[in-house]
Amino acid sequence: MSRIILVTGGAKSGKSAWAEARAEALGASRIYIATAQAFDAEMEARIAEHLTRRGAGWTTVEQPRELAQALTETDGDAPRLVDCLTLWLTNEMLAEDGDWRGALETLVATLSRQTAPVILVTNEVGSGIVPDNALARRFQDAAGVVNQAIGAIADEVVLVVAGQALTIKDGAA
Amino acid sequence: MSRIILVTGGAKSGKSAWAEARAEALGASRIYIATAQAFDAEMEARIAEHLTRRGAGWTTVEQPRELAQALTETDGDAPRLVDCLTLWLTNEMLAEDGDWRGALETLVATLSRQTAPVILVTNEVGSGIVPDNALARRFQDAAGVVNQAIGAIADEVVLVVAGQALTIKDGAA
Amino acid sequence: MSRIILVTGGAKSGKSAWAEARAEALGASRIYIATAQAFDAEMEARIAEHLTRRGAGWTTVEQPRELAQALTETDGDAPRLVDCLTLWLTNEMLAEDGDWRGALETLVATLSRQTAPVILVTNEVGSGIVPDNALARRFQDAAGVVNQAIGAIADEVVLVVAGQALTIKDGAA
Repeated sequence: MSRIILVTGGAKSGKSAWAEARAEALGASRIYIATAQAFDAEMEARIAEHLTRRGAGWTTVEQPRELAQALTETDGDAPRLVDCLTLWLTNEMLAEDGDWRGALETLVATLSRQTAPVILVTNEVGSGIVPDNALARRFQDAAGVVNQAIGAIADEVVLVVAGQALTIKDGAA
Repeated sequence: MSRIILVTGGAKSGKSAWAEARAEALGASRIYIATAQAFDAEMEARIAEHLTRRGAGWTTVEQPRELAQALTETDGDAPRLVDCLTLWLTNEMLAEDGDWRGALETLVATLSRQTAPVILVTNEVGSGIVPDNALARRFQDAAGVVNQAIGAIADEVVLVVAGQALTIKDGAA
Repeated sequence: MSRIILVTGGAKSGKSAWAEARAEALGASRIYIATAQAFDAEMEARIAEHLTRRGAGWTTVEQPRELAQALTETDGDAPRLVDCLTLWLTNEMLAEDGDWRGALETLVATLSRQTAPVILVTNEVGSGIVPDNALARRFQDAAGVVNQAIGAIADEVVLVVAGQALTIKDGAA
């Protein structure tokens, strides 16, 4: 089985940069699976910043919701970097026909069948004051469930703080 | 002296599940000291979810505020799991006759006299943006003070991230 | 080159107390560089609490914005403790003539020229729900960028949780 690596951390903790460096160490050509959708100028700027940093050697696949399908279609020799699970969850929860629990189950099953490595970036969103509104609380809980589910099947889980990576799970390759 | 274990983490990080598994490893019968109060349907659902997961071998004691008393009354052979300190603090801060600093002092003194192990679950609530309103800031600070006080006397402190436990303090048993 | 130590953690996690103890281990006399400004009673109380805890052996320098200048002026034998970067960033972002990116660049360059050790306290603010308002999001991102930049040049990075310090970077002295 392929190596599954989950990279988590707060906003602007350096998790994407760490994940990209790790992917670059795993293969000369890499596939970037982007879940971000540019709804507004702020989001466009974030996407552009990531794109500039990555540079050559990357093929980008945009897939806001069908992550399992994107992983199946891109499985081969090249490592894949999924950035990020939290936006994927947001897209799934906001979609009218969304079913994030079902989609998570499919994602977990698909990850277990991959040949090439997959690095998944996610966010820590549950370590602040519990939000006032019920939707934000549901999102916070769902994000935690996603992180636990992927953490459980991952060979490696890494927490990034102030740009520094701390390995919190390191199973056999 | 008994082993005191503090388990912290964000919302839905997997800290309760880890704490339950740890308690199960410590004794065939366990006592669950629940601080949650079912004020609304959301809270009832959370309590029911925890109850279903725990299964057999657990005796539940509901004690929203008098934790020290509950610990004294249940001390014997069975390990105790307190879930969670953050709700206990909330209950104490919201009570008209509440005195969380006094209650914390009593709790710390009581913990130092226990014979059977105590596992205490708590929440990280101070790693987000500082809240706008003064009450939330007071709660955030108080939660940090509680975690520090219990962390100081604990034999073990564990941080749970994405379902994975990271030991951050491990004193002698 | 001098030892640069970055201490991060959530609100009331015990990071200042840990940083103070570390500074005390590094020198009999220490310089405290305070970035806090007492705008209101709440802030005054926090400053007074820190001051009381520190006790003898400390010289305090108040410098809400010109951190690089304060470090240059205080460089000698005594270790310096900067508490904290997050308030410094806030002051810089709120100032009409503020330029936090430029100031961060100057700070990084200045840190690399220090003779005596510098311990810098900062806050984790990016692990909660992403804030609703754009200013808070900009601050959250900027705080992450500051932490990454100092983390990159630090010899040591320490994360404090429940009063317990976890070393996440430990380079050569």
